[in-house]
Amino acid sequence: MPEGGFLLCEVRRGKEAAVKWGVITMDKERISYHESVQKMYERIKEDNMTNVWDRYEAQGIGGVPDRRCNFCMAGARCDLCSNGPCRSDASKDKRGVCGITADGMAMRMMLLRNVMGASTYQYHTDQTIRTLRETAKGNTPYKISEPEKLRTFAGRLGLETGGTDSEVALRLCEFVEKDFNRPAYEQSQIVELLAPPERKKRWEELDIFPGGIYGEMMYSTSSCLTNVDGYYVSLALKAMRLGVAMAYQSQIVNEYCQDILFGIPRPHMMRVDLGVLEPEYVNVLPNGHEPFIGFAMVQLARKPEWQEKAKAAGAKGLRIIASIETGQEMIQRWEEDDVFYGFTGNWISQEAVFASGTVDLFAADMNCSLPVAPLYAAKYGFKLIPVSGLVAFEGITERLNYNPVEADKQAAILLDMAIENFKTRKGSVRPGLKLPMKEAVVGFSTESILDALGGTLDPLLDAIKSGAIKGVVGMVSCTTLRDTGQDVHSVAVVKELIKRNILVLSMGCGNGAMQVAGLCSLEAAREFAGDSLKAVCEALGVPPVLSYGTCTDTGRLADLLGTISGALGAPVPDLPVAAAAPEYMEQKATIDAIFALALGLYTYVNPVPTITGGPNLVKLLTEDCREVTGGVMNVETDAVKAVDGIEQHIMEKRKKLGI
Amino acid sequence: MPEGGFLLCEVRRGKEAAVKWGVITMDKERISYHESVQKMYERIKEDNMTNVWDRYEAQGIGGVPDRRCNFCMAGARCDLCSNGPCRSDASKDKRGVCGITADGMAMRMMLLRNVMGASTYQYHTDQTIRTLRETAKGNTPYKISEPEKLRTFAGRLGLETGGTDSEVALRLCEFVEKDFNRPAYEQSQIVELLAPPERKKRWEELDIFPGGIYGEMMYSTSSCLTNVDGYYVSLALKAMRLGVAMAYQSQIVNEYCQDILFGIPRPHMMRVDLGVLEPEYVNVLPNGHEPFIGFAMVQLARKPEWQEKAKAAGAKGLRIIASIETGQEMIQRWEEDDVFYGFTGNWISQEAVFASGTVDLFAADMNCSLPVAPLYAAKYGFKLIPVSGLVAFEGITERLNYNPVEADKQAAILLDMAIENFKTRKGSVRPGLKLPMKEAVVGFSTESILDALGGTLDPLLDAIKSGAIKGVVGMVSCTTLRDTGQDVHSVAVVKELIKRNILVLSMGCGNGAMQVAGLCSLEAAREFAGDSLKAVCEALGVPPVLSYGTCTDTGRLADLLGTISGALGAPVPDLPVAAAAPEYMEQKATIDAIFALALGLYTYVNPVPTITGGPNLVKLLTEDCREVTGGVMNVETDAVKAVDGIEQHIMEKRKKLGI
Repeated sequence: MPEGGFLLCEVRRGKEAAVKWGVITMDKERISYHESVQKMYERIKEDNMTNVWDRYEAQGIGGVPDRRCNFCMAGARCDLCSNGPCRSDASKDKRGVCGITADGMAMRMMLLRNVMGASTYQYHTDQTIRTLRETAKGNTPYKISEPEKLRTFAGRLGLETGGTDSEVALRLCEFVEKDFNRPAYEQSQIVELLAPPERKKRWEELDIFPGGIYGEMMYSTSSCLTNVDGYYVSLALKAMRLGVAMAYQSQIVNEYCQDILFGIPRPHMMRVDLGVLEPEYVNVLPNGHEPFIGFAMVQLARKPEWQEKAKAAGAKGLRIIASIETGQEMIQRWEEDDVFYGFTGNWISQEAVFASGTVDLFAADMNCSLPVAPLYAAKYGFKLIPVSGLVAFEGITERLNYNPVEADKQAAILLDMAIENFKTRKGSVRPGLKLPMKEAVVGFSTESILDALGGTLDPLLDAIKSGAIKGVVGMVSCTTLRDTGQDVHSVAVVKELIKRNILVLSMGCGNGAMQVAGLCSLEAAREFAGDSLKAVCEALGVPPVLSYGTCTDTGRLADLLGTISGALGAPVPDLPVAAAAPEYMEQKATIDAIFALALGLYTYVNPVPTITGGPNLVKLLTEDCREVTGGVMNVETDAVKAVDGIEQHIMEKRKKLGI
Repeated sequence: MPEGGFLLCEVRRGKEAAVKWGVITMDKERISYHESVQKMYERIKEDNMTNVWDRYEAQGIGGVPDRRCNFCMAGARCDLCSNGPCRSDASKDKRGVCGITADGMAMRMMLLRNVMGASTYQYHTDQTIRTLRETAKGNTPYKISEPEKLRTFAGRLGLETGGTDSEVALRLCEFVEKDFNRPAYEQSQIVELLAPPERKKRWEELDIFPGGIYGEMMYSTSSCLTNVDGYYVSLALKAMRLGVAMAYQSQIVNEYCQDILFGIPRPHMMRVDLGVLEPEYVNVLPNGHEPFIGFAMVQLARKPEWQEKAKAAGAKGLRIIASIETGQEMIQRWEEDDVFYGFTGNWISQEAVFASGTVDLFAADMNCSLPVAPLYAAKYGFKLIPVSGLVAFEGITERLNYNPVEADKQAAILLDMAIENFKTRKGSVRPGLKLPMKEAVVGFSTESILDALGGTLDPLLDAIKSGAIKGVVGMVSCTTLRDTGQDVHSVAVVKELIKRNILVLSMGCGNGAMQVAGLCSLEAAREFAGDSLKAVCEALGVPPVLSYGTCTDTGRLADLLGTISGALGAPVPDLPVAAAAPEYMEQKATIDAIFALALGLYTYVNPVPTITGGPNLVKLLTEDCREVTGGVMNVETDAVKAVDGIEQHIMEKRKKLGI
């Protein structure tokens, strides 16, 4: 435990109790940046529930013998084949049984993680295209909300934009699916049509200009087989190639088609933090990354008859509460009201949300639902329903896999379940836990930034040229307990960035961190931003941290950078920008980071990735990559030093541009 | 070291030398079943080369602290996300930080291995379809060698079989590619058309009837993401679902289309073992799993002008030597002559092949090329050329990725390189190492078994009904050093099986083991088979171990079992048959085993898979699965006990069938 740690249990029960019971007490900062979650940890402990903080502690701190394994921490191990498990040691040229080096082992496992990330992004995209197609055919409760964006995007893809919305949408679906299915040895047309010319040229030179995403996933996955590709440089290039395919095909197509269906993100206020959960309401939480069922439920719940049903069950009403990344997808597009009430937080908040005793139904799509959710469902009396075939829990047999043509019916079934659940749940909530709630500005996108700037990027570019905004950081991050409590390090990094007049666009679970921490607000400009950034924010009426959506919006950011690159006439690697993942957690984040390197960005990552056992690999990513793609990885656990690195990079790029 | 071990180094240098130099000496049985490889190990040691045996020893024997890790051995660990690496302990309900159990961790990693296997099989299939399409268009050096099989297979897939060979082939390519690209939520037509009806019904009930292979790979891979599917039962079912997609779409389509291109396997003799490598010849080794470049090279090398070129360089001639699974694909289809000279062995022989100093060019496709190959290429003076984008080696920059429309040109370039290499290589070979060579019967397939039986399965079925053949084991295996030397355990298991009158069909690197061990011969029937099996073999003129191709031929075997099931009017799980993987090694093998469970087979596997940390998972696979699919996994390190289990299963099934 860090010295000087403030012991929750000491406060609650006195030090004696903590010692007597051998309770694992924990520094508040080791739990979470957010007071709401800190409070909920107390309740979780009182209720003797397994939780992410205690499970983390039980695994030990990195490097302690017999707890965290040093070989695993360093990526210097492999258990793929039956000659293993093997451990490697680069200092002695000790290799795996097959002969693979530590560099190869570490990068191969990282590539495999990246395939997992790409796959999950593409799974979402496939569901989006399926939804768009059925919507175009009139078979879903959704509609084409942005016909103009539909035509703009179809036009960028070289498609005929005449005809009805449905016709254009079907044309778009057919085109992108054909591209997804293209083999790896044929160039992706989506990448060809959307990526900046300078980048495409570099990717061709490096043989990392990708084909279709399915073929690319197969290419990368097959390369990871035992005795196929043991060379860390080749594996790293393959990861970048997959990253490029993923960003343009999976992410951009996904977000733009979700915009077409559900609306382009536009700035608005949104209630955030655990206080959005009120026990007197039927609370339904769509959770994961896919917003389809969630939007269908909001549409229904906004109808008076559904509110009446909830009231007839004794509730004050029926609410859909946004949660994690499904929540981000929803709140960036739809405005709050008394039905679509607010956003809880990111994935580490999950057990805290459960333990609040306010949840009636948790609809788990695609990812970010904890395997222990059934234990919480039993304890706190809520329905846990997977709504994607991907998701499964031990002991949970009921499910309702999303199908666009049945979305309305499925939403109704889920709402009925939730209302029914309320009847038994309402008596079980322990009173007295008042949790905080605040408002965040959410919903920035390329289009809405342009709107805020009066239809042109010039005010932003001028502010950058003048130095009022020193540079821009795209923060795509999760939240992890590796080095600090939930969001503690992310908030520290971002505060340091805006203090130095660097504008932040935040995405992913890290965006949830910013919203709940109060950084996506106009007050934050006054309180934390440097003088010149503050002035820009006040002039434009925007926060210093622009809520830019989910991790899937990484592609949207890449597209924006392409536009800025064109406007400034400078290649992406020469822009005064950087990517940051201060608390990356899972496999979507790792491929986002690798894509950032391919895009030519200075990419700050934390925690230290499990590759340190491969010295040549570390050198490749943190030094030599600069000469390969123009991107480079920076790894640093200290927030101030991390921002020193980012700022130095930005200043070098400003100098190069002569601004 | 096993007690009573026969120390190679003692013989060579005297015990003192071994002790003095701290040389890792090794029991012959710990090296290999094959004398040729045992001999080559001596030379490799003399030459101070890193090698698979010493690397295995350096990793330690399973369970020894600080060498092999017990958590890794048990599959009770995870390093997917940044909250980890985690270790789990089922006995204490100690979970990963996310909350996943030991059962979930172990099965999730196994599913990920299976995705790797499926992906690599499908990569090969994609290359085959690409080759068939270009061949149909007249753009390759290959031809449609089996127009009848083309039409039979197209007919089974419900396609119009009229028109030219090219037209039928193009129709077939289009149909299968459309099926591969089908989403996971639409049923695969290939599975629908090829699988036994009883199995399809069971798979539908279990929700493991798959869609297209790309969608299924995405479905499985995405399920493995952190916080998506942590439930071992769900993950195991997903592995089976992927296995079904893989077997019918990737394996069967691949092998049948390779038959159409290169010929249906028909029994013939083939020289095997390291003695096929003669230093006075230019020796070209296509290696991996894909036979395309290999066949193109044989076609060229059989032309007098190429033999003249080699002779002009001072060689006795130019030979293409079959190696590992590319070799199996080739030798099962094409007859030996003085150009296509013979087969070396399976993957553990690889360094022995290199160190023989007889190799001029090693063309590495898709898989099974060791990462240390460049060190051997430098030492023994051969050209190491990747011929697939998948394959890469540290320090090797020259490559020639296979492209069907350039196959002839590519083959010529490779042969020229080899002949050029011979000029410098020929002086460098140390004399005096005479290695053994023998002949094996290779080339069994459903069609050639039918031919051998006079056009009907009846003689085989009658022999099974009478008990002359007690049952049939499909042995799909690799070779591994985990418990014994190369092929030692595989040979022990198969000898025990045929002794008990159980016919063996062998596939994969395990098939190479049988060929080199002399079990794919008529003599083996006399020497090792039980009396009644011996009589059948002699009557039919076949060995007791039928060489049935590569691991990819698992699908071919499944199709044969479907035919037998139909002929006997009994579902596959009721047949007196079993699957065996006595020395599985990599990720193709694990998905073959999981598919065997889905097919309803008793499946013997060794070494002990890295899943023992999950007690519920072990119970599911080794007991409860019997009630789910009819298949069950048996894990056993002792060869006699393993065969006891197989025989008992076969006898139960005979009893159930009343035979």
